[in-house]
Amino acid sequence: MKPIEECSIAVAGLGLMGGAIARALKALKPERIIALDMDGETIMAALGEGIIDEGYSLAAETEAPGTVLPRADFVYLCLNPSTMLRFLERWMPAFKNGALITDIAGIKGNIVTAVEKTLRRDLDFIPGHPMAGAEKGGFENSGLVNFRGKNYIITPLAQNRRENLSWLKNIIHRMGFGRITETTAEEHDRKIAFTSQLCHVIAGALIDCEEDTAITRFGGGSFEDLTRIAMLNAPMWTELFIENKTELLRRIEQFEGSLDAFKALINAGDARALEERLSAVRERRVSMNTKEIVR
Amino acid sequence: MKPIEECSIAVAGLGLMGGAIARALKALKPERIIALDMDGETIMAALGEGIIDEGYSLAAETEAPGTVLPRADFVYLCLNPSTMLRFLERWMPAFKNGALITDIAGIKGNIVTAVEKTLRRDLDFIPGHPMAGAEKGGFENSGLVNFRGKNYIITPLAQNRRENLSWLKNIIHRMGFGRITETTAEEHDRKIAFTSQLCHVIAGALIDCEEDTAITRFGGGSFEDLTRIAMLNAPMWTELFIENKTELLRRIEQFEGSLDAFKALINAGDARALEERLSAVRERRVSMNTKEIVR
Repeated sequence: MKPIEECSIAVAGLGLMGGAIARALKALKPERIIALDMDGETIMAALGEGIIDEGYSLAAETEAPGTVLPRADFVYLCLNPSTMLRFLERWMPAFKNGALITDIAGIKGNIVTAVEKTLRRDLDFIPGHPMAGAEKGGFENSGLVNFRGKNYIITPLAQNRRENLSWLKNIIHRMGFGRITETTAEEHDRKIAFTSQLCHVIAGALIDCEEDTAITRFGGGSFEDLTRIAMLNAPMWTELFIENKTELLRRIEQFEGSLDAFKALINAGDARALEERLSAVRERRVSMNTKEIVR
Repeated sequence: MKPIEECSIAVAGLGLMGGAIARALKALKPERIIALDMDGETIMAALGEGIIDEGYSLAAETEAPGTVLPRADFVYLCLNPSTMLRFLERWMPAFKNGALITDIAGIKGNIVTAVEKTLRRDLDFIPGHPMAGAEKGGFENSGLVNFRGKNYIITPLAQNRRENLSWLKNIIHRMGFGRITETTAEEHDRKIAFTSQLCHVIAGALIDCEEDTAITRFGGGSFEDLTRIAMLNAPMWTELFIENKTELLRRIEQFEGSLDAFKALINAGDARALEERLSAVRERRVSMNTKEIVR
């Protein structure tokens, strides 16, 4: 890959994350950023803010990818997983020869399988997952997303070119991310089922099980912290939950096992064992490094 | 009650919350703040920082309350619930005639029952629960606790003097708290079981069910937010969970009901119903006012 300053970049999907990524890429002064989004107003807003140099509404100009992709050295796919797979399939012939492609999907197994089946041999697709977000969705909130020091997972394919991997990791760091973890799609899906999807299911269930919204008068911060992510993008999380359902259900059951253990100790009034288990939990959480940034 | 500037205040227990309360009270320039704590070093530190005017280590001077309480117009009990009940029983004869007493215990039913049985007729005890904290414990971290705009629950007794209630609420606001909710001990315990205790059990179970502490490399913020409160004060939460076990177990089961519903939808791959339920969750959480401050 040539230096980013000489690259034309296509960003497909200017939602919360696509918008945030376009903003971060723009700061790296690429030759050109061209955006594709279903929504014409989003394209107008992004052009107005100077975040993109050129943009097309896919609703109005359904064939736009056919003229945009042949010009893009680097393509960031910021679409929901199913939309992205349809987009890749439909526009595979249009990508520029030798283009580097990456994505942001929160599940990787099915994507890697599909990409390995359909990708043109001259293209390089490096699957990725930026671990950032915000509780408000859409391009209009994309300025709120903070990449600084955040985790980024990439799940390289066997055929990825080494120099492209280095190039992409450098761009990811320059966008502000901290720790980049390289792993397999399987490990990604297994771990994300715990750190991300299980947490969203829990937050959802917490809100689901109490109808009285005025109960927040009794909140001291923990309820607010545990349920902030319940303000989720329902269509996207529905896809992620169902696509990763084997791992996610396993994680929910693992969590329920611990919940049942606490329930039994509380029910038995076994203060000694309960305190011991809570102390162990405290120690484990304290020992977890949630801040480490490796650059 | 006379103006706080003319009051001598006793603070029993200079832990995380007692320390934070002493700091906030000191800023209101009372006549005198006298502290009691098991730990002599804590007393020395608080004296050194000028947060208290006088202090006694209960380990070294077990009879200190007998000379401190007769001088205190206002007593803030910042002890674990069981310790507080023992303290009240042991020192009931020592309180100054007409003193106003309040506490910070996270459970109220058993305390109100005990206080109604043992309180001297001339004393006024207003049970309270400041909804604030921090994930690090002890006096040394009490400067990290932020009261600004936080909720405060009081569960007045029938015999509380109206003017004392107004006086205390004014002090609470002046310490920085936002919304003060007056309710019964029963309602407090019912709602706190949900907003606070259930959340701590969930955070604990989330940490309990995964041994790999390096999984935080896959964290994007939600896992960190959901488990921050797992860094809890194990002895205190053990007491709170067991003392409120009927309500807490009911809340855990209510939560498990919602979790099971999500599990079933995910397992069935029912995208439409799952998306609908997640959208409803999102709407409910968005409609919850977690910031409102009424002063």
